Amino acid sequence: MSKSYIEIAKEAKYKLAGNGARNIGMLLDAFKDIDPMTDADTYGTGKLINDFEAEIAEFLGKEKAVFFPTGTMAQQIATRMWSDATGTKKIAYHPLCHLEIHEKDAIKVLHHIDPVLLGAPGRLFTLEDLKAVNEPLACLLIELPQREIGGQLPTWEELVEISEYCKAQNIRLHLDGARLFEALPYYNKSAKEICALFDSVYISFYKGLGGIAGAILAGNTAFMEEAKIWKRRHGGDLISLYPYIVNARYSFNKRAGEMKKYWQNAIAVAERLNMIQGVKTIPEVPVCNMFHVYFDFSKDTLEKILTNIAEAHDLVVTMNIREISANLCMSELYFGDSFSLIPQEVLDGALEQLQIELR
Amino acid sequence: MSKSYIEIAKEAKYKLAGNGARNIGMLLDAFKDIDPMTDADTYGTGKLINDFEAEIAEFLGKEKAVFFPTGTMAQQIATRMWSDATGTKKIAYHPLCHLEIHEKDAIKVLHHIDPVLLGAPGRLFTLEDLKAVNEPLACLLIELPQREIGGQLPTWEELVEISEYCKAQNIRLHLDGARLFEALPYYNKSAKEICALFDSVYISFYKGLGGIAGAILAGNTAFMEEAKIWKRRHGGDLISLYPYIVNARYSFNKRAGEMKKYWQNAIAVAERLNMIQGVKTIPEVPVCNMFHVYFDFSKDTLEKILTNIAEAHDLVVTMNIREISANLCMSELYFGDSFSLIPQEVLDGALEQLQIELR
Repeated sequence: MSKSYIEIAKEAKYKLAGNGARNIGMLLDAFKDIDPMTDADTYGTGKLINDFEAEIAEFLGKEKAVFFPTGTMAQQIATRMWSDATGTKKIAYHPLCHLEIHEKDAIKVLHHIDPVLLGAPGRLFTLEDLKAVNEPLACLLIELPQREIGGQLPTWEELVEISEYCKAQNIRLHLDGARLFEALPYYNKSAKEICALFDSVYISFYKGLGGIAGAILAGNTAFMEEAKIWKRRHGGDLISLYPYIVNARYSFNKRAGEMKKYWQNAIAVAERLNMIQGVKTIPEVPVCNMFHVYFDFSKDTLEKILTNIAEAHDLVVTMNIREISANLCMSELYFGDSFSLIPQEVLDGALEQLQIELR
Repeated sequence: MSKSYIEIAKEAKYKLAGNGARNIGMLLDAFKDIDPMTDADTYGTGKLINDFEAEIAEFLGKEKAVFFPTGTMAQQIATRMWSDATGTKKIAYHPLCHLEIHEKDAIKVLHHIDPVLLGAPGRLFTLEDLKAVNEPLACLLIELPQREIGGQLPTWEELVEISEYCKAQNIRLHLDGARLFEALPYYNKSAKEICALFDSVYISFYKGLGGIAGAILAGNTAFMEEAKIWKRRHGGDLISLYPYIVNARYSFNKRAGEMKKYWQNAIAVAERLNMIQGVKTIPEVPVCNMFHVYFDFSKDTLEKILTNIAEAHDLVVTMNIREISANLCMSELYFGDSFSLIPQEVLDGALEQLQIELR
C-alpha cells in the first residue's frame, strides 16, 4: 500500500512551517532544568503557578493574570463576565471568531450570550461596522491577528480609534490574543502598549509560542478574582497545571523574541509563492508569521506535486491542505523554528520545482 | 521565627497518609519509559489518548470512555446530558456531593439544573430517601465511596436495589467514582460489575491512584460522542492532554491493584486511633482506604501534640486539620504508598505517644 500524503509529509526532514513535530519530547525538554522536588501547584495556588502568572501580568501590563487550560474556557468566561457586568447579552465579534466557529456554540448554549457578527467573513471589521450596531453591546472582541483570514491586522490608528469608541460607549474591549506575540513586530509596540487598549486579554502558549497547551487571561484584580470562580465552574481548576505551566514558560522564553524573524521568513516565502501562476497568498504581504495560501488546483493534483517535492528535496511545503472546491485548495502556513533549519539550496530547489510543476 | 505546623509536617520523613509529596518529579517518573518521539494527542485523537480510553472503557465495561481534564467538567456534562435527554431539570444527589459544595454552583449557574438533595449530610442516602422524591428525576448521582462522610459505602444489596428502582422509574444512574478503585475491595467486585449498575461513570486519576490530574467519563457510544461536544464547549478539549494521560496510565498501573492493602492499613490505624480517649473515626471501621478522624481538642493543642510526635518520630499523622469548633478538629486520612514506608517501631512509637499526649 502506498503511503498517504500526510505520512510522506511527516517523514520529510525539512518543514516550511511550524516549530517541529508535536511529540512528547516537547514536554521533557521544558523540564530539563527544573528540580524534580519543586512543589506542584494546587488548585491555582503555589509559587510555580503564581510566579508565572505575575510574570505574564507584568508583561501584558495588567494587574492580574490567571492560567487556564484553554483559551476556549478563558474567552467564554471573559465575555460572560462582561455580559453580566453590563447587564446585556449582546457581544460583538468577527464572523470567523473562535467563539463562533470552533466552540460548538458554547457561548450560546452554556452562557446564553447573543453574539453580533461584525463586518464580513472575508475581511477585518472596521470602526464603521462597529458604529453601525444599533443596540447596546456588553463587549467587543478583537482577534489580533485575525487567524481565519490569514492573520490580518488593523492599523494601529484604527485599533486606537476602536478602543476610544468602546470606552466612550461603555463597551468592554476584549483581546483575543491567541497570536498576540506574532502581532507585536508589525505594530512595533510592546505587548503592554497594545493591551492598554483592552479591558481583558487572552493569550495562548501553543500557537506561535509552540507550547503544549494552555492560556492566560489577564485584567484587573477584581475581574480576575471572579474569573477564577468561573474557572472552577467550567472544570478548569485542575489540582495541578504545572505540566503546561513549565512548558509555557519555556516556550515563552524560547520564542516570544523570535516573532520578527518568523514574520520576515513569512514575507519572503509569500513573495516567492505569489510569483507562481495559480498561487496566491492572503494577505499578499503577511503582517505576521502566518498567511493563507490558495492554489488553483485540485487537492489530488496538489498533493501529488507536494509529494514529488518532498521526495526530491526532503522538504514538506504544508501538511494541512483544505479543499475549497474542485480546483481550489487552501493552506494555512505558520512560520516558526522549522524554517531556519532548511538549507538555502533545499528551499530554492523546492520552490523552483513547485513553480515548474504547478505550471 | 518558628516553623508552622505545615512546614514541620512537610519535612517529616514518614507520613501516615497519602502517596508522597506532590512534586513535579511525579510527572517525570511517569515519562521514564516513554519514547520522546511518541506523537502527542491532538484534540482528543491519536493513539496515545484513544488507546488509554479504550483500555479504561474495557476495564469499566462501558462502550466508550473519554479523557477529561477534571471530574468537575465530566460530571456536569454527564448530568446535563441526562437532563437534556429526559427533558427534566431535576437531578438528585447527596447533600455533600462534589457538584453541590465544590463547584461554585456551576450545575445551577452554567447548566440551570435544579438539584434535589437526598437524605441528610451526615449519612448515606437510602432507597427510601429516593422513593420519597415525588417529582420526576433525570438522573441520580451516587458517589462511591461518599468522601465527605469518611468514605462510607452502601451495601451491595442496597446499590443493586437503587439501580433497579432507577431503571424502573426511568431515572438515569450516574456513578461519581472519583474513588471507585478504593471501593472495589469492600464489594469484592470488579469495576465492571459495579459499573454495570450505572448508565454513566466518572473516575479520577489523582485521588487514590495518586496521579497528577485527569478523569474519565464512560458510557455508551452515542452518549460519549455527545459528551465530546460538551467537552469542547466547556473548554476541556485541550490540543494535547498527554502529560496527564501518560501519568494517569502510570498511576493506574501502579496503584489500582493496591487498594486492598491500603484499606487494611486504614482499618488497622483506625482501630488504634479509636482506642484513644477523645479520638473517633468515621466510619468506625473504614470500608475503604480513607476515613475521617475527630479529635476532641482545639486545633492549637492538636497541632502542638502532632508537632511533638513529628519531632520525636519523624512521622506526621496528618497534614490537614480542619477546626470544627473550639474543642473539636477533624482530619481526612487516605492510605496509600506512604504508609508502607513507615518502620513498625516508628508507627508504634508515634501512636503510643499520641495516646499519652492526648490523655
